[in-house]
Amino acid sequence: MRLVTNEFVPLKNVKIDDGFWSKYTEIAKEKIIPYQWQAINDLVPDTEPSHAIKNFRIAAGLEQGEFDGYVFQDSDVAKWLEAVAYRLTIDPDDELEKTADEVIDLLEKAQDEDGYLMTYFQIKEPDKKFTNLLDCHELYCAGHMTEAAVAYYEATGKDKLLNIMCRFIDLIDKKIGPGENQLHGYPGHPELELALVRLYRVTGEERYLRLCEYMVNARGTEPHFFDEELKKRNGINLWGGYQERVDKRYNQSHKPIREQAEAVGHSVRAGYLYTGVADLAAETGDESLKKAAETLWDNITKKQMYITGGIGSQVHGEAFSFDYHLPNDSVYNETCAAISMVFFAQRMLRMNPDSKYADTMERLIYNATICGMALDGRHFFYTNPLSMWEEATKKAGVCGHIRSKRPGWFGCACCPPNLARMITSLGNYVYSAGDDTIYTHLYIGGEAEVNMPFGTVRISQRGNYPWDGRITFSVGEGRYTLALRIPAWARSFEIKVNGLKEKPEIRNGYACITRDWKADDSVYLNLPMPIEFIEANPLAREDNGRVAIQRGPVVYCLESADNGDKLDALRITDFNCFTEFKDESLFPGAVYIRGKALRRRDWEGGELYRPVVSGDEEEVEITALPYAFWDNREDTREMTVWLRR
Amino acid sequence: MRLVTNEFVPLKNVKIDDGFWSKYTEIAKEKIIPYQWQAINDLVPDTEPSHAIKNFRIAAGLEQGEFDGYVFQDSDVAKWLEAVAYRLTIDPDDELEKTADEVIDLLEKAQDEDGYLMTYFQIKEPDKKFTNLLDCHELYCAGHMTEAAVAYYEATGKDKLLNIMCRFIDLIDKKIGPGENQLHGYPGHPELELALVRLYRVTGEERYLRLCEYMVNARGTEPHFFDEELKKRNGINLWGGYQERVDKRYNQSHKPIREQAEAVGHSVRAGYLYTGVADLAAETGDESLKKAAETLWDNITKKQMYITGGIGSQVHGEAFSFDYHLPNDSVYNETCAAISMVFFAQRMLRMNPDSKYADTMERLIYNATICGMALDGRHFFYTNPLSMWEEATKKAGVCGHIRSKRPGWFGCACCPPNLARMITSLGNYVYSAGDDTIYTHLYIGGEAEVNMPFGTVRISQRGNYPWDGRITFSVGEGRYTLALRIPAWARSFEIKVNGLKEKPEIRNGYACITRDWKADDSVYLNLPMPIEFIEANPLAREDNGRVAIQRGPVVYCLESADNGDKLDALRITDFNCFTEFKDESLFPGAVYIRGKALRRRDWEGGELYRPVVSGDEEEVEITALPYAFWDNREDTREMTVWLRR
Repeated sequence: MRLVTNEFVPLKNVKIDDGFWSKYTEIAKEKIIPYQWQAINDLVPDTEPSHAIKNFRIAAGLEQGEFDGYVFQDSDVAKWLEAVAYRLTIDPDDELEKTADEVIDLLEKAQDEDGYLMTYFQIKEPDKKFTNLLDCHELYCAGHMTEAAVAYYEATGKDKLLNIMCRFIDLIDKKIGPGENQLHGYPGHPELELALVRLYRVTGEERYLRLCEYMVNARGTEPHFFDEELKKRNGINLWGGYQERVDKRYNQSHKPIREQAEAVGHSVRAGYLYTGVADLAAETGDESLKKAAETLWDNITKKQMYITGGIGSQVHGEAFSFDYHLPNDSVYNETCAAISMVFFAQRMLRMNPDSKYADTMERLIYNATICGMALDGRHFFYTNPLSMWEEATKKAGVCGHIRSKRPGWFGCACCPPNLARMITSLGNYVYSAGDDTIYTHLYIGGEAEVNMPFGTVRISQRGNYPWDGRITFSVGEGRYTLALRIPAWARSFEIKVNGLKEKPEIRNGYACITRDWKADDSVYLNLPMPIEFIEANPLAREDNGRVAIQRGPVVYCLESADNGDKLDALRITDFNCFTEFKDESLFPGAVYIRGKALRRRDWEGGELYRPVVSGDEEEVEITALPYAFWDNREDTREMTVWLRR
Repeated sequence: MRLVTNEFVPLKNVKIDDGFWSKYTEIAKEKIIPYQWQAINDLVPDTEPSHAIKNFRIAAGLEQGEFDGYVFQDSDVAKWLEAVAYRLTIDPDDELEKTADEVIDLLEKAQDEDGYLMTYFQIKEPDKKFTNLLDCHELYCAGHMTEAAVAYYEATGKDKLLNIMCRFIDLIDKKIGPGENQLHGYPGHPELELALVRLYRVTGEERYLRLCEYMVNARGTEPHFFDEELKKRNGINLWGGYQERVDKRYNQSHKPIREQAEAVGHSVRAGYLYTGVADLAAETGDESLKKAAETLWDNITKKQMYITGGIGSQVHGEAFSFDYHLPNDSVYNETCAAISMVFFAQRMLRMNPDSKYADTMERLIYNATICGMALDGRHFFYTNPLSMWEEATKKAGVCGHIRSKRPGWFGCACCPPNLARMITSLGNYVYSAGDDTIYTHLYIGGEAEVNMPFGTVRISQRGNYPWDGRITFSVGEGRYTLALRIPAWARSFEIKVNGLKEKPEIRNGYACITRDWKADDSVYLNLPMPIEFIEANPLAREDNGRVAIQRGPVVYCLESADNGDKLDALRITDFNCFTEFKDESLFPGAVYIRGKALRRRDWEGGELYRPVVSGDEEEVEITALPYAFWDNREDTREMTVWLRR
């Protein structure tokens, strides 16, 4: 029995019209997608050519040449197509669709007779297909292209790419499985798992679900597939070097998934894998898998997540390190990893509409994801520190992976298109419906059509979130429960229906109002947003003695541009002196926060150490801006989220 | 004109008899030196064989076999011989001397006809001598062996090793220099520079001083020697790989030494180089070189030195990072680097008896050097963090180079023998004399004979330093100035001569008492040692909001063994509640410190973040022990020097 208790309202039924997100959608539409198109066609000046489209043209026999780019270069085209699909869903555009169709025609031409489609192997090592699932991202690329195929089909009704990918997946299904002549393998970089469940859901083809199930269940079992595979390759890896052992924690194959109690390894791999696991549990009704997903979710969110929602606390392996180890300056926090957690949250919500999932999703979308992008839509962070000292990023190896300014498009361009697809598909994360309940998980303005057993319910949402916690809904006719998430950050809330106060029951963090709704009934939700000073669990040592500023779902930070250098010389002693104010210089409607702090005085003598001189501090005014907006001005020598108190 | 204003009383004239240092000397004599002998002869069970003596036997034709070990493996034999020389100086031992003589006989046999002596090249690549000064430590090994030769000659009067090394240096002098057919080179790892000055001082051979001068002046000039050398090797490095560029900052050849205002690169290389530069300035009278040494000294001690005296704040390149970047957990702080700073301090003192040099020397010997050694003399730290969280050392790459327990002897065994030579030669750092002044730089009990223009002055020193600041001197006859260092940490001091109070003039940090001393005049110095709470300059961000505990020259730390886990959940609010007490469980006479602190309470709910709950702390008692003694008990999960306040 499926474990799906509620289904998200699909993107095509949700129209976002929101002061905050419409601006981001605009950036994704007008900047990222066209820019990525230029990039994959090697048309961006002063940037390393991507070669992504060219690889397909070579594979299709339309051009001569060698493969170039990362082994997973094809996935850039996949992510572009997927983002285009969402973009066309929310805002049809004939010309863009024509371009996408041409790309799909090209993919069709590039596909081998037997369904195989990955230009690296087709062009460069045709005899090495399926010999290195560990390093070569073969199944990863298939996963991304399958996601694109599903999205494009859902967006346009056109099934050419879907058919292309079904043919490829059919080939993979032949190659991989429990049979004697099959590889008992699974992706070195998970992604295909969640894509297979999407493909199953749109095609209804049970084999795709079973293939996913096989891969998830085989992962981490003995004899270990990656050990065997490496042996077959005589230890030679993708880069031509000899490798003694496989780092199994890195790709989450160190033990079977049901025995994994801690999130480990490469954080993007982890996020995609866990999303696929949750998907599979939901569709197959496997309670033990659901339990595994829950355990990993709790581990991450209770022990390994930054206050922004970021995950992956170390550059070594771009990975989780261990429980409560959350360094703020040497962290990795890849933008893609945060995005993968949004997916994971949505899948958990489908099985269990508990607000803890949506709370984290909200934390992620307002902080750890969009911080990856400059407001010009042209510069991107791969890594997202919570504390940045420019000199250290340039001179200290420990922060060598951190950038003080977002670079332009980069060679391994995973994060920008991932942001594009998340932002353009955000409508798919707002509402869900199950039994007689319509859940509102996110407070994003716009309209939605919710299909209920008794018919379609229209809901509209209006407000000025995340700056203001007052939201107004207009709901459609029918007897159902409207479940409004009460965020964990809210210390109180107020609900009125048609102007009259309600005291609804709270179930799993949702205020549930059940009634015979009339057309255009209005619901008013007020989530007061005082300025909050947040402390971390004492086990999270890096934050001891520090506070972060949060207001509503928005985490704030201090930048040198407003507060001068030496941000760590500041400490907050009086929480009550802080006030909010509007500053629209970077973003319309944005709320900033200012207050007083003490700053350690510079030392005259220039000595490095001295006996404590108490009270050698001066009062200064400090200004905090939303973390997601940092580094949108010239002067970004320092930034910090956690302030000393 | 030489710039030497005072000369250190040589080791042979100083007898240490001191509660603190006699114990360390005992460890060096009874444990490290015999243990290293076993090690270089491959006799230590369960340890990778060193192969160091074997390499010499192979080079001497006494054994068949291949070279094994690091390229600089010979230096282990050199350091052993040097430590043995000091050991024989302070405590003659016929059997040990015989063993050393046999090693020297072996070196003689191993030496090539032309004077060349380095087993790596002799055995493995005889045609590649002097082709890779950058990587291959050829001049470094010559430097260490030259130091051993000088020390052994001074200890025993035997000149066989001295002659061996003169022959080798003569060869190097032919190969390297300004001539058309000479290499315009210098050591990739400095060390030979300071050794050449030692050799010059003992032999009087001017050429050795000129060779040092050539190397120091050539360093960092254009055309860059290492660039040219790399080109000649077609970019092939020691490890057989191709290398595009030379990291010149790493080995301090990024610019001429007189233009270097900041200490950069590999910290041990830096420490040895700067010592050699100071030596050269002193002997040649080169004021611009002296200025360079002073500039680098000030940069290190005012901007790049840990409170323990440790240097090298990053594992990347085992190097300095940049001014005021002093992370406590990811630091490198190699034991050898601290030792090199002791050498540097001594050389600066010779030119300028300013207490800042001796203060740092004292900081180093009581903290950053001996912390490298367990009190069993068998376990050693290579890296010395100021904050250690065992789980992070095992699971977080950023601390992956840090050990929670001192390992036994290791393959790259530079630090243990370096400690042995520093400890056994410590007598050479206590007193110096110049003009009519006898300087006491360190407060270490024992006797010394100081050669003054008018005759020999005997000085004896008695006390219980560093635990007690009361020191008594008995001095010999003559008219001279007795200059007693008043440490920068001392807030007050008291001096009595023959029981009567004195108010001596303070010159450059030394209390100077000039009089016609009578035999056995007694001088009493009292340096009160209250418990001090030290804060770091606000620019040293990692320490903002923290204090370190210091008493006299001893820096303290907290260990989990005394204080439980989560040391960072503690903060000190009341400085006055701290008291000292004696704890001799690890070390005779040791003074520990205890007091009250507040500890953040564990969170019941297990959440990771929450709005600040003020006052959720409990009062606990904490105990601090001398930093140098940490990790001498089983239970060492955490340690920290800097405590929150």
